[in-house]
This record gives sequence, structure tokens and C-alpha cells, in this order.
Amino acid sequence: MELQELLQGFDDFNSNNLFKTDFLLTWEKSKQDLELVVRVAETLKMLRQKNISPKLFDSGLAVSIFRDNSTRTRYSYASAANLLGLTVEDLDENKSQISHGETVRETANMISFMTDFIGIRDDMYPGLGHSYMKEVASALDEGIDQGVLEKRPNIINLQCDLDHPTQSVADLIHLKNYFGGLDQLKGKKICMSWAYSPSYGKPMSVPQGIIALMGRFGMDVTLAHPPGYELLPEIMTIAKQKAEEAGGSLKLTQNMEEGIDGMDVVYAKSWAPLQIMKERTQLVRNHQFDALDALEKKCLAQNAQFMDWEFDQNKLSHTKKGAALYMHCLPADISGVNCKHGEVSESVFEKYRLKTYKEAAWKPYVIAAMMLCSEFVNPGGVLQALYSSQKPRILT
Amino acid sequence: MELQELLQGFDDFNSNNLFKTDFLLTWEKSKQDLELVVRVAETLKMLRQKNISPKLFDSGLAVSIFRDNSTRTRYSYASAANLLGLTVEDLDENKSQISHGETVRETANMISFMTDFIGIRDDMYPGLGHSYMKEVASALDEGIDQGVLEKRPNIINLQCDLDHPTQSVADLIHLKNYFGGLDQLKGKKICMSWAYSPSYGKPMSVPQGIIALMGRFGMDVTLAHPPGYELLPEIMTIAKQKAEEAGGSLKLTQNMEEGIDGMDVVYAKSWAPLQIMKERTQLVRNHQFDALDALEKKCLAQNAQFMDWEFDQNKLSHTKKGAALYMHCLPADISGVNCKHGEVSESVFEKYRLKTYKEAAWKPYVIAAMMLCSEFVNPGGVLQALYSSQKPRILT
Amino acid sequence: MELQELLQGFDDFNSNNLFKTDFLLTWEKSKQDLELVVRVAETLKMLRQKNISPKLFDSGLAVSIFRDNSTRTRYSYASAANLLGLTVEDLDENKSQISHGETVRETANMISFMTDFIGIRDDMYPGLGHSYMKEVASALDEGIDQGVLEKRPNIINLQCDLDHPTQSVADLIHLKNYFGGLDQLKGKKICMSWAYSPSYGKPMSVPQGIIALMGRFGMDVTLAHPPGYELLPEIMTIAKQKAEEAGGSLKLTQNMEEGIDGMDVVYAKSWAPLQIMKERTQLVRNHQFDALDALEKKCLAQNAQFMDWEFDQNKLSHTKKGAALYMHCLPADISGVNCKHGEVSESVFEKYRLKTYKEAAWKPYVIAAMMLCSEFVNPGGVLQALYSSQKPRILT
Repeated sequence: MELQELLQGFDDFNSNNLFKTDFLLTWEKSKQDLELVVRVAETLKMLRQKNISPKLFDSGLAVSIFRDNSTRTRYSYASAANLLGLTVEDLDENKSQISHGETVRETANMISFMTDFIGIRDDMYPGLGHSYMKEVASALDEGIDQGVLEKRPNIINLQCDLDHPTQSVADLIHLKNYFGGLDQLKGKKICMSWAYSPSYGKPMSVPQGIIALMGRFGMDVTLAHPPGYELLPEIMTIAKQKAEEAGGSLKLTQNMEEGIDGMDVVYAKSWAPLQIMKERTQLVRNHQFDALDALEKKCLAQNAQFMDWEFDQNKLSHTKKGAALYMHCLPADISGVNCKHGEVSESVFEKYRLKTYKEAAWKPYVIAAMMLCSEFVNPGGVLQALYSSQKPRILT
Repeated sequence: MELQELLQGFDDFNSNNLFKTDFLLTWEKSKQDLELVVRVAETLKMLRQKNISPKLFDSGLAVSIFRDNSTRTRYSYASAANLLGLTVEDLDENKSQISHGETVRETANMISFMTDFIGIRDDMYPGLGHSYMKEVASALDEGIDQGVLEKRPNIINLQCDLDHPTQSVADLIHLKNYFGGLDQLKGKKICMSWAYSPSYGKPMSVPQGIIALMGRFGMDVTLAHPPGYELLPEIMTIAKQKAEEAGGSLKLTQNMEEGIDGMDVVYAKSWAPLQIMKERTQLVRNHQFDALDALEKKCLAQNAQFMDWEFDQNKLSHTKKGAALYMHCLPADISGVNCKHGEVSESVFEKYRLKTYKEAAWKPYVIAAMMLCSEFVNPGGVLQALYSSQKPRILT
Repeated sequence: MELQELLQGFDDFNSNNLFKTDFLLTWEKSKQDLELVVRVAETLKMLRQKNISPKLFDSGLAVSIFRDNSTRTRYSYASAANLLGLTVEDLDENKSQISHGETVRETANMISFMTDFIGIRDDMYPGLGHSYMKEVASALDEGIDQGVLEKRPNIINLQCDLDHPTQSVADLIHLKNYFGGLDQLKGKKICMSWAYSPSYGKPMSVPQGIIALMGRFGMDVTLAHPPGYELLPEIMTIAKQKAEEAGGSLKLTQNMEEGIDGMDVVYAKSWAPLQIMKERTQLVRNHQFDALDALEKKCLAQNAQFMDWEFDQNKLSHTKKGAALYMHCLPADISGVNCKHGEVSESVFEKYRLKTYKEAAWKPYVIAAMMLCSEFVNPGGVLQALYSSQKPRILT
């Protein structure tokens, strides 16, 4: 789509309910608001391609709190902040005094005096990540209400125990491009499948995010996983209900072959068994760090029973026309490449490798779009103003 | 106060002795210069509130050297730098080669070629922090004199063994707001009291900074601590002399109840015994890191004798009208919240919690003000120019 | 030279072959292109001195990957990026998931979506550093060819196993200033000498970079080292050939006294024995980290045989007029200062100390110049435009 066309399309959006809100879970947002994020992300990308700078802040901070390792999301957040004119200030909990008994609400205010956004990744422990974000949000509410803060920074969920919205919206744009429009997703079949991995403790937020989002655009979603790898029941309920409201569906199977049969899209990715993740949360809460090693062994042994859940050439051949779109949030465990047995065979991964890169390329723009939509009530107008100003990103 | 009024007030300042100087110790600065920092900080805050960008640097670095953990000060320094247009470059001594035998004077020059400010926190060892800053300052003097540097970066003390000026000036603004003006501080009673903490080795720079500063504005300062928790004698002398010159006073007591009796303000905060801190310095100098553990136990045992030095509801009731202002630099050790027994009871802390947040909110602006005053000879003129330009911080 | 004169001098450059290229090895670049970098670096320095901001990017990222400790180069890269308007995003491989089995080509794309430059330091293992950079470069080529990336970031070699171009070009400017022009280097004698150090595993990239570069400007280069400390033969060949083509020369000696006799310049610096470095590479490849300790002991014992390779007052007296220019990339191992016996005696180092600081001061500008030349086809025109705009770096 051309930039002019993209900009005109904002006329279809008569409201922005993302304004002055946190972006924590896609299912708390309306479909129209998600479409708004998609369009803003696409427009930002095209502005930058045309060397038009989308800088909106002359100064300001985007704080990041990463409670788990991250390359891509860290980089994506930094890119988004930089694009809009913000500087990332990383709250490294090892360097800081947070471990010295500070309360969350205090810290939340202390890092917000000149902050426009707080990006948080806290995905390791079911029952903790989203709660932590809500706790921070509530502290910020108090801070603004009580005159501690001049402005309330909005929170961007960079992955929690429930959802990974910057990933799933990037995936949505990838699907949009693949099928030629969001309206083309209706009736398309996607299988979110568990896949074997020799690693331990991968969060459930990506599969949960995918099944909760894609059905809302009318896709027929199949969730496939071995017994013991159930997703959180409350999210299953939400996903099913929202899919059906939108003319999509959610089906469940414990057989990978069955799951991918005839699919348009296969998202094959490992995650940890919920029961083990819950034990893990308990152990961490009780500071029983030694027991985590034993738990890891248990998890790896459980995974090992399902080593045949690998997305390989044979399985691919049973998808629609033997040519379903393979998706992954990266990094993938690729058999014979970075592990002995993994989520995907080398030949299948190689076939789709560059496509997964392009899928990932949307994440910085999705984060920037979430920031823009929560900061400005009229994103279309703001983007039009940027386009009109024609300020070059690189001096020409 | 309104922005116009704040800006006009700069007419009262006919000189700026902070220009081209380091900000290491408040007692090296004139009272008028401290008042200048206060006014600049207030003006910067109001400009930002009105969405006017106070960016003064198109590029430039603010190097930070943190030799102790820090959340608040690190964030405050980053905020101040960003507000003025500078980028923080953190010299992480673990990542760098400093531990490989470099001399301070060499490193000081190496990190200064394009640097406008160097913020240093080095507060752990009496006799070392301030000396280190002076050593860096002297290396920078040589660098500029000998043509190594194009411009000498100025140093901001982000806490040393002697003083914590960015904290104490923020506290001063807090008191100014509470009493309605700096001229209202005269005759007000503040008790800087030691308080019990289950943690070890808290620096003496905050109590030293408070007693050395508040008397200069005519406050009657009482210092209360158990035997063995004396502050540095040379700072006691300075504080007493400066207070008396200004019509204030400095009294000493070894009884907390006596100290807080009838007070307008109580700043209740723990610090380590000087003798133990000096032993610590010696152990660190001699690389006897094992002995530090034993010393920590000794310190905690000594602290434990004074567990009743907690600022609680009963003690509060003996302050002026039972309603003194409680102050703390945060994070506080709050009994029953983040420790079993601490510096302050939960109910007293909760009563003043949001006030302590507001107290902390001044620190980023104080740091920015110190930067501005050392960079520009005429801060009032610079701020007036920013106001006139009306450049928005966030595009509107 | 005056700024006007510097700017006019760009008329002599009718092409820029650095445009859209990586800067990995000086010997891959033409002499004229190296002279272009020198002139751009000098011009950037003078613009900044005159408070003219050379900001060329309104936003953008300069990713850094440091696979070895670094103070100076890290700071220099941050300075260069900031000067041009870019924000550094450090890929900390400990914080990231790179150790979790990602492939280089994938990561290279993931960190490049909004990246203008990637600076890499990977100097510890012969046979690995340069290869790694080429691997990243090749992944970026694929990324841009296949539509993953909007723009290909260019790579700046911040030190590899073969070369240290940002250092050697800074050294070249230092020599230019010392002798009064690049055309004055012809016939001048420089000894690149090994020197004793009590530390282990210093890379060979600096001596290799020096011998491969200085002969191209007509200098007579002598390489002096004890037996066992040979540089890579392929680089010896390149250095000799390029020197002779330019009217310079490359000689070899295993005697320090002989090497420095009558020299105009002595660059005395330690490096590790190639054989030991190769064993190290092997051990690292095989994850035999325990064996590295034994190897370190072996290396230190080998070094200890050559403790008399110290550049001291006596050796200095045998250089030209007893007053050769001493050079070092810093930090130097200074006998009696930061080690017992080292590369240079205290009195010789002290005599040249400030000169080594000035030598180092060029590195940030050299990096900025490399960035500018790879981004803009006409660096002279860009710098003239900056000069004409007179945009102040610090508001006046």
C-alpha cells in the first residue's frame, strides 16, 4: 500500500481507545484498536523507508524492565523508543537496589518522574508477570492522582505470563501481508502447535497470545499439544469466545499430525508444561532455588517423551497444498543446527527462514505504534503532520 | 509560583559562581549559589510541565561512574541528562579495563574527549569517595591545561563519603515547599536522627549533607544518634559554624526522644558506625575481602543494640503538634514491610509515603540545574530563552 | 589548519570508495580513502571545537558488540555515534539469548531493522574475529538482498584478530600532526616493538595494524620482537608489499636495541605469542575452559624470559637525537606504576604521557569519520553543509 493510501485510511477510525492506556493484553483491546495499531505500525515503517523522521518527542525516557533475557525484544523496544525520540533507561535489577527490599509501588514512582513509557518483560512465572504489571500500573495511578507524577507513563507489556502482545500483533501483520489484508484472514486455518525442545521453561505467552488474537480476525484456530501442556484455562475460554463472536473458531487436539492437517499456517513452538511452571513459581516464591534444578530435569524428561513433535518435511506435506506458512517468534530450536532435536527440521526452517525474519521485523514498529496510540488521541493526524513536515531522518 | 514569576526572580542573582565549577560539596558553595540551583530546578520543572523542552545540547555525553548500587540516583542522572539533550554513557568498571591497573588520571581523560559532565557516586568508604572525585577533577584540569581536552567536563557529586548534594538540595526544595519559602526555614526545628536498620554499611553522606545544609538557611538542627555513630568531626565543625553564621544552630544528643521533642521536621535514617566504616576502608585498601563479612556481622550486632531507634507513632506524637514532617531519602527500612524491624513504623511511613515520593521527585531537576549552572554563566537568561522559544517537548 | 582550508581540501577527493562499505581492514582500502577518513575526522573535530553540531541523523541506532572488555573503544564509539545523532544499543551477549544457540546470521538481522551501524570488537582469538565480522556482513547482505532489511547497516571493526583500524588511523593522524603532514611521513623511521608485559593474551591487532598502515605513507617500518612472537605471516606479506609500493619498507629484527636504533618513532607494546593464541582459539572452540589457566601460566612464563624488552631511558637515548616519539594505544603497563615490570619505564612514559592522551583523542573522530564516509557519498559536501548551517552544539 502506498503511504498516501495508508494515511487516508485513518479516516475509518473515529476513535482511539488506546489513548492514555497501558497495553497489557490484546483481549482487553477492541478489534478496531488493534487494527489501529497495525495501521500506525505500517505507516511508521513506510515513513522511515522514505527517510521521513517520525520523531515526536524532543526528550523523554522509555524505561525498560527485563526480568528475563532478551535480544529481540530489547532491541525492538530500543528501536521504537529511538524512532520516536525517546531514550531507553534500563532498570537493571542487579545494578539497582530493588533486591534490597523496596516495594514495587515506590520503585514505580521513582523511575517515572520524567518517563513517558515503561516496557516490562516478566514472563517466567505463571501468576506473577501480569500481576506485577498491574501492580506497577496501580502505583502509577496513585502517583498521578496524588500529584507525585506530572505525567503517567504508560506501560507496554513486552511479554508476561499471559500474553505477548507486541509479538502477536507483529505476527498479525505478517499474516495480513501473507494473505493480502486483514479481511482475508477470515476462514484461514492456523495451527498453533506445541513442538519439542531440549530447553526448559519456555513461557506460554506466545501460544496464548496467538490463539487469543487470530480467531478474532475470523481465523479457524487449532491448538495442538501433548497431554500435560495445556494452556491457562481462562485464556482458552476467552480465545474460544472471542473467536466465535468473530466468526472464527478454536479447536483442540493432542495429536500434531491431526492439528496441522490441511492448515494454511503452522506456528510450531515449544512451551513448558503448566504444572511444572506453577511448581516453579511456588519454588521461586519460597526462595527454594536449589529445587529448581530438579524441576528442570523433570521438565526435560517430560519433554523428551514428545520428541516426534517436530515440524518436518513430512508434516509440512500434510498441510494445505503441502505449503503452509510456517511461523515462529524466534529463536527456533532447529534440529541439527543449534540443537540435536528441536522444534523444526533444518530443511523446513531454511525454507521459511527469511519469512520468519520479516515476521520479526514488524516488532519494533508495533511497539512504536503502541506508544504512539497511547500518547496521541489522533494517531492519523499525527502521522499526517509528520508526513507533511518531511523532516529527513538522515540529512540529505 | 508561576513560571513568569520564577523567571523574573533571576534578576535577584547578579552572579553565578557555579559557572565552570564542579559540584562536589554544598559547603563549598555560597548560599546564593545554592538558591540559584533551587530556582533553576523549579523553573526546569515548570517548563517541562508546560511541555516546553529545555534541551540545550544538540549532542554531548554525560558520563556516569557508579561505584555503588543505585536506582534513584542513576535514574535521576539519566533524566537530567536527557532533559538537557545529553546521552548518558555509563562507565561500568566491571566491563571496562579500569581494574586492569589503569591510573585514574588516564581514565579521566579517556572518558572526557566529548563529555560535558561526569557524575560520580562513590560513597562506600570514608576517606575515599571525595578524594577520588578530586583526583578526577585534577586530571581534568591537567587535560584542559595541556590541550588534551577541548572542553573540561564538570563533575557532579552523586554521593560521596562526605556529602550527597543532589539529595540535600532536593530535600531543601521539599522543605521550602512545605514551609512556603526558603525565608520561612529560619527558626524551624529539624532533627536529623539515626534510626535502626537491619542492613549494613549505609553511608554517612546523607546525615552529613543535611546537617551541613539546613542550618545555613537558619534552621535549628538537632543531630541525634547512639554512641558510636558520630559523624565526621570536620563536618560537624563546618555545619555548626555555618549554621551559627546564618542564625541557625546545631545541637547534639544521644537520645532519640530528646532529639525529636517538639521538632517541625524529623529526618530519621540509618547510617553505619564511623569506626566500622573506617575499618572497612582499610580492609578494602588491603584487599582483605574475606574480613568484610566478619565486619558486617560486627556492625549488625552493634546496630541491634539500638533497635528502639525506630520513628513510630509514639515518637511522632512528641514532635510539634504531633505532626512533624517526616523525611527520608528512600528506600526506607519500614518495620513489617520490607524488614522485621526498621527505621520507621509502617503507620508513620504510610502517613508520609507520598510526601517522600514528592521529596524524591526533585532530584532529577536538581541535577539538571547543577548541570545548567555549571555550563551557562547566565542561567536566568538561558531559561528565559527556552521559555520564549516555546519548543514543545512532545509534538502537539 | 583552519576549518575553511580543511573544507576546501575535499576538492582533492574526486571519489569515495568507502560509501556503503564496511570498514574492516585498512589494507582493503585505498590510500586516498584513508586520507579521506583522516580529513573528515579532522574536520569533525574542528566543527565541534567551534560549537557547530555535526548531527546528521535525526534518529537511528549504532549497535555495538563487544566480545572483549573495553573502556576507550566503547567510549569512543559512543562519542562518535552521539556526535552524529545516533544512539548506541549495546548487544550484551550475557543479557541476550545469543548463548542459547542462535545463529549469527539470524541475530545479525534481528539487531539491524533500524540500525545504521554495527561496531564489533572481537580480538581475542586468531582466526575468529575477522571471520565473525565477515559472517555478520554476509548475513546483512542477504538481509538487504532478500528484503528483510530496509537499509544495510555498515560494520565498523572496533578491533579484530587481524587489524585495529580505528586505532591505527588515529595513530596516523597523531603522526601527521607530529611531523606536519601526511606527506612528511615519507622516509621517517618507526619501530613497532614488542615489549614485556606481566599480563596475558594481548591481541596482535595493534602491531599488525601499525605495520600494515604506516609503510603505505612511505615510512620505514621496523618490526622488533623476540622469537616466538611473530605476527601473522599473511599480514607480514601485505605490509611489506604495500610499504614497498609506496616507497617505504618493512624490516624485521629480534633485537629491541637494534630495532629502535636511530628511530624517529617507537611504538612499544606487548602482544601474545601466536602459537599460544592459536592454542587458545582451539581450547575455546572445544569449550576446554579449564585448560585456559594452564595456557595462561605458560604464556606468562614465556613472556618472563624477555623482561628486558622494556622501553626505558637508556633505550630512548639510542633513538634519533635521543628523542623519538613514543606511542602507545593505552593502557600501557608502566613499570613501578601499575605493575612491577612492564612495557615502559615510568620516566619515559611520563615524558610522553600527555602525547599518548592526544593520540587517543583522535579515536572518537576517526570512528565518526568512518561512519560518515560509509553513509554519505560526498563527505566534503556534507561537512560544508554542516558548516554553513552553523547549528550550535550547545545553545548560545
